Amino acid sequence: MTAEEARRRLAAARVARLATVSAGGRPHLVPITFAADGDLVYTAVDAKPKTTTRLQRLTNIRGNHRVAVLADQYDEDWSALWWVRADGEAAILDDPAAMAEPVRLLAGRYPQYRDSPPGGPVIAIRVDRWTGWSAR
Amino acid sequence: MTAEEARRRLAAARVARLATVSAGGRPHLVPITFAADGDLVYTAVDAKPKTTTRLQRLTNIRGNHRVAVLADQYDEDWSALWWVRADGEAAILDDPAAMAEPVRLLAGRYPQYRDSPPGGPVIAIRVDRWTGWSAR
Repeated sequence: MTAEEARRRLAAARVARLATVSAGGRPHLVPITFAADGDLVYTAVDAKPKTTTRLQRLTNIRGNHRVAVLADQYDEDWSALWWVRADGEAAILDDPAAMAEPVRLLAGRYPQYRDSPPGGPVIAIRVDRWTGWSAR
Repeated sequence: MTAEEARRRLAAARVARLATVSAGGRPHLVPITFAADGDLVYTAVDAKPKTTTRLQRLTNIRGNHRVAVLADQYDEDWSALWWVRADGEAAILDDPAAMAEPVRLLAGRYPQYRDSPPGGPVIAIRVDRWTGWSAR
C-alpha cells in the first residue's frame, strides 16, 4: 500500500490505537478518537471517564516522543482485512491557542465534541512513516 | 472493570492489537488474530501476506519481552465504548511441540486456520495485568 493510500485510510477511520513507551521500556496502548491533517494526527484528552487523572500516555510521551498509531479493519472474510500505521513523534499541546485548531478538527469529525469540546491537552503527532497492508 | 471482566472480553474479541518496543525505544503496532487461555494470550505468524519476512514484532520481542495487547469496541454512540488491555511478557515459540497447543486453540477460534494452520512462530504472552474501561 502506498503512503498516500495509508494516509487516506487512517484519515477516514473512526477509531485508532495509540502506542507509547514508558521510561522503563514498556509499551502502553489505548484506543483514540483522532483527526488527521496531512502528516499531522491529533488526539485529545477528553471528558470520557478515565481510570486515572495522571495519564500514562502523557507521561510516556514527555519521556519518549516516539509513538505509533494504528487503524485496522477486521472481517471474518480475511480477504477484506487491512491495516494502516502512522509512526511519528508526539508533542503535547496544552496552550489554548495551540489547541484551537486540533480541537476544531476533532469537533468536525465527532459530533460529541461539538457539544462538549475536549479540554485537552492535545497530543500532536508528526508522522514520519506511513505503512499499510491490505489482503486484497 | 474487573480483571475477570477484562479477561472475558479480550477472550471473546476477534481482533486485537499487539504493541512491542524496539531496541531504540520505538513502539511497533500490528493487528493480531489470537487465542486466550486464562492469563496466556497466543498469536502466530501465519500465511497472511507480510510486507517483510523479517518481522519487527519478533525482533522487538527478542530484545524486550514487554508487550501490550488491546481490544476495543468503537461505536458512534460513545456510551457503548469499551476497551480491554493485557500487559505482559512475551516469549517466542518455534518448536513444533510447543506450538501445537497454541495452534490448536487458534484453529478452534478461526476456521481459516483449520484449512491452513499458521506456520509460526507463535508469540506466547503471559499477562501480568488486565485493565479495562467501559463507558457504561
